[in-house]
Amino acid sequence: MIHRVELRPLMADVDAMGVVYYGRYPAFFELGRAELMRQAGMNYAQLMEQELNLPVSELQVRYRKSALYDELLTVETRLAWLKKVSMGFSYRLLAMRDGREEELALGQTSHGCVTDSGRIAPLPASLVRMLQPWLD
Amino acid sequence: MIHRVELRPLMADVDAMGVVYYGRYPAFFELGRAELMRQAGMNYAQLMEQELNLPVSELQVRYRKSALYDELLTVETRLAWLKKVSMGFSYRLLAMRDGREEELALGQTSHGCVTDSGRIAPLPASLVRMLQPWLD
Amino acid sequence: MIHRVELRPLMADVDAMGVVYYGRYPAFFELGRAELMRQAGMNYAQLMEQELNLPVSELQVRYRKSALYDELLTVETRLAWLKKVSMGFSYRLLAMRDGREEELALGQTSHGCVTDSGRIAPLPASLVRMLQPWLD
Amino acid sequence: MIHRVELRPLMADVDAMGVVYYGRYPAFFELGRAELMRQAGMNYAQLMEQELNLPVSELQVRYRKSALYDELLTVETRLAWLKKVSMGFSYRLLAMRDGREEELALGQTSHGCVTDSGRIAPLPASLVRMLQPWLD
Repeated sequence: MIHRVELRPLMADVDAMGVVYYGRYPAFFELGRAELMRQAGMNYAQLMEQELNLPVSELQVRYRKSALYDELLTVETRLAWLKKVSMGFSYRLLAMRDGREEELALGQTSHGCVTDSGRIAPLPASLVRMLQPWLD
Repeated sequence: MIHRVELRPLMADVDAMGVVYYGRYPAFFELGRAELMRQAGMNYAQLMEQELNLPVSELQVRYRKSALYDELLTVETRLAWLKKVSMGFSYRLLAMRDGREEELALGQTSHGCVTDSGRIAPLPASLVRMLQPWLD
Repeated sequence: MIHRVELRPLMADVDAMGVVYYGRYPAFFELGRAELMRQAGMNYAQLMEQELNLPVSELQVRYRKSALYDELLTVETRLAWLKKVSMGFSYRLLAMRDGREEELALGQTSHGCVTDSGRIAPLPASLVRMLQPWLD
Repeated sequence: MIHRVELRPLMADVDAMGVVYYGRYPAFFELGRAELMRQAGMNYAQLMEQELNLPVSELQVRYRKSALYDELLTVETRLAWLKKVSMGFSYRLLAMRDGREEELALGQTSHGCVTDSGRIAPLPASLVRMLQPWLD
């Protein structure tokens, strides 16, 4: 299963070349995985209430084509893997150009599950159950 | 007394016109007041350890000239006023151009003192004592 | 006429108190006026193609209540005034809490119309015509 | 040769956990490579005047420990490789804790050289000459 969410870059997101600043892609990916989790039935705020966090341990982005100011973009998010104490997402940033969908960027994030006090913790069983169907 | 701190806008800070995005000025002002407080002898992190915050209640910015990418800017910060439960800062953003200092923007922020649980609280006496000499 | 657009703050938008950073409100307001203009029939990208910009000359924000991480917010945007070479927008940031809409913040921006070379220019007649019905 | 530059995370840089948001590291890395290039004798603004850009084609970040609000951080930047039409930087984000320097994060960026019209171009000879001594 793949999650898709749309956004339009603001002036706040672009650089002097009028294209999305490379450091804004992580926020677009955050939007993708937050909305995937919400659709799976649990949002990140609920996880935090359980004093759990999913900090990013690794990020990779491959920028292929510039994303333009005000252009309608799609963030495509997949749950790439799911383990006992960690999980991974993959992302594609897409735009419709000349009637066909072009791939602007690819991304990946890895996340560990940690308590508020910083200790590694197993992913909650309820979260695993909800996310299982999303596994690629 | 006036506090001065320098910075150079990054690509992360500018918009498609190659000038600093209007929404980045609040972060530049945050830098100014954080460094003023540090020089006065207390940093904001110490305040937070006392479970106190100084959230912004009002912000005003007057943008007069664009601030450019990579240009050496000065944030000039003044403590504008200091009351029992609130305080205010004023800011000038400056750049050296053609050998003279030009005023690019003016700003003001007002801050209330609140506890972590959200109640209004008096500014700590130690903070007031340290900031008093900075009053304009 | 009032324009309304929804958004949910990301981790990218909040500060250590878990509430939206005061410097992110200008980007939320940008979203509001960009979408108002799009609905009026012209987007900002089209304006830039005519080598015109509407840089912000003044910003005011009154922060009344914190906006929370992941909370569904509404940005309400009004065209406050429209002159020959400038215009103004006003904003309200709203959240549904306990079944009723609460006002979290109020904002205002003023904009001049300038050419790419920095000269003041009249607002295009087509833009004025499209925006006229939105005048408060 | 290694370039080192210091910074202190602002509230603008942190998330609800009070640690630097994972999407702010790219801006810290931008600061590192911009200052390395300036010290090498050419700044990025000069490159843009020659209608050349060095857009990021790949980004990798490995987050090992959280970077804290207001903590004094060091961005250590190395020129990792230098080819005819591309180059790469590597980064270490460091903090002094308990008297010793700890490695908080590792990063890498790859950059192609392109003209303003988007065509791949050789890195200017003057830039290559200046950067050569920085090669790891």
